[in-house]
Amino acid sequence: MSEREITVLGTASQVPTRERNHHGLVLRWDDAMILFDPGEGTQRQMRHADITPSRLTHVLITHFHGDHCLGLPGVLQRMALDGTETPLEVCYPEEGQEHLDALLHLSPVEERVIIRPRPCAPGRVLDPPPFALEARRLDHGPPTLGWRLWEPDGRTLLPERLEAEGVHGPAVGDLQREGQVRVGGRTVRLEDVSVHRAGQSLAFVMDTRWCDAALELAQGVDVLICEATFLERHADLAQRYAHLTAAQAADLAREAGAASLVLTHFSQRYPDLRAIAAEARARFAPVTVARDLDRIPLPPRR
Amino acid sequence: MSEREITVLGTASQVPTRERNHHGLVLRWDDAMILFDPGEGTQRQMRHADITPSRLTHVLITHFHGDHCLGLPGVLQRMALDGTETPLEVCYPEEGQEHLDALLHLSPVEERVIIRPRPCAPGRVLDPPPFALEARRLDHGPPTLGWRLWEPDGRTLLPERLEAEGVHGPAVGDLQREGQVRVGGRTVRLEDVSVHRAGQSLAFVMDTRWCDAALELAQGVDVLICEATFLERHADLAQRYAHLTAAQAADLAREAGAASLVLTHFSQRYPDLRAIAAEARARFAPVTVARDLDRIPLPPRR
Repeated sequence: MSEREITVLGTASQVPTRERNHHGLVLRWDDAMILFDPGEGTQRQMRHADITPSRLTHVLITHFHGDHCLGLPGVLQRMALDGTETPLEVCYPEEGQEHLDALLHLSPVEERVIIRPRPCAPGRVLDPPPFALEARRLDHGPPTLGWRLWEPDGRTLLPERLEAEGVHGPAVGDLQREGQVRVGGRTVRLEDVSVHRAGQSLAFVMDTRWCDAALELAQGVDVLICEATFLERHADLAQRYAHLTAAQAADLAREAGAASLVLTHFSQRYPDLRAIAAEARARFAPVTVARDLDRIPLPPRR
Repeated sequence: MSEREITVLGTASQVPTRERNHHGLVLRWDDAMILFDPGEGTQRQMRHADITPSRLTHVLITHFHGDHCLGLPGVLQRMALDGTETPLEVCYPEEGQEHLDALLHLSPVEERVIIRPRPCAPGRVLDPPPFALEARRLDHGPPTLGWRLWEPDGRTLLPERLEAEGVHGPAVGDLQREGQVRVGGRTVRLEDVSVHRAGQSLAFVMDTRWCDAALELAQGVDVLICEATFLERHADLAQRYAHLTAAQAADLAREAGAASLVLTHFSQRYPDLRAIAAEARARFAPVTVARDLDRIPLPPRR
């Protein structure tokens, strides 16, 4: 397995600050590279983070507020400049077609980047490989989708069991593909020489009020990446503007049984994020408060 | 007269670097605040520069390549958020209407920012106050306009001459408005108590190959703000991609009789700009090589 890692490009909500660019986040997942909600300035943040735009394979957009999508044209133009032969899947709420068209109109790269727009309704969006993707409708202003991304469960081979059963060389590949293999006149089954391995999973929840769909997306994930625009003392603003507080994000992770929580998308009213961290950590652990250009490795498989 | 000053927001061409944001420049001109070619990230650069978007009065766009316009939606959204009652004049090449429409579609602020789109052909665009504006067609790929901005010539009153002629109090205002005033039975004419004062002027030339229109725009200006994407050793690239070299920008200033030159819009291939400065200064003075977040006061009136 290649490395799986999150690179944080920006952590601001609505308005960038001196320290925080508009939202942007890249997930490296084996050979896939997925860009989530590219806000304005994502192209330059990718440069700061030493990420090569031409290696992107997917863009996932939750909704078309500017701070979640205005960076797309610049990223596409950079991809066109560098040249890329990998098609780019762009997933977004189907109601936002006009917005996507406007963004693409501003980045006329048709001949140099193969873009596959994929207007999405709630439900299964992509099947493996390299991952399965599901969308649920969140509770924000404009049509908004949250994402759950995962790999199917698999099996981890046990070298000592393979040795004991006399399986080696090409027979190992046959065993993995077929589920069993004939060795010295006997049938060895995959389950005899391996243990169950839960596939990794990740949910991306923003922007939204507390809702069942967010809970469902986060169910048992290894990593929940969640907006925490406000502190609980501004819960009225969170409710009014359809956002979550740090406490709600932590409750979401706990109730959904997530293994870890990454918070991002912070209001400019909080120059110091220690209160955000404290509020969430009082209710859940482990919590990572994302900062621009952080790299966050995915936790080991359970 | 209020302060007149240039604030540099970004100096990159096409691709931003760690040190240089995409292009952006603000000119404070008395009560007007003019934003030139807002590339991606302009909103955040304005924050770094402590410039308040809601005070903008004009946006001038030379052409619709991404590095000259993708920052507009973010700036408009910030203006809408802060609230503004000053209408915003947006001047751009008339052939770019679809691009402007796409940019405005991505920043739905109609109810909170009064935008006055002004599709421009070459010729006079605005009359004073607060300034006159003229456009000329430059030689780039897409339809591109360069700008010349100036105030009419005026007269500077001489206090000792006013005193000698007995003009004071409200009579001074009458004299300025009417060109003459009756004092103690005599007529005092404005030219008897003042000297000619040349109006300040400024040209903004990007992106373009060397062309007569650029020379005309820059004729005798106080400040020529000019792209210098390449060094002369890459003159072939400049010609191919329709840009100027630092040497050409300096020649433009000299041949046009400009009083000063500000260079910006540098290729990422030059991390160190000293060669740009040296090349231009061998042919013209004074030259300012703009850096992100520089403030450059306009020279005193001649």
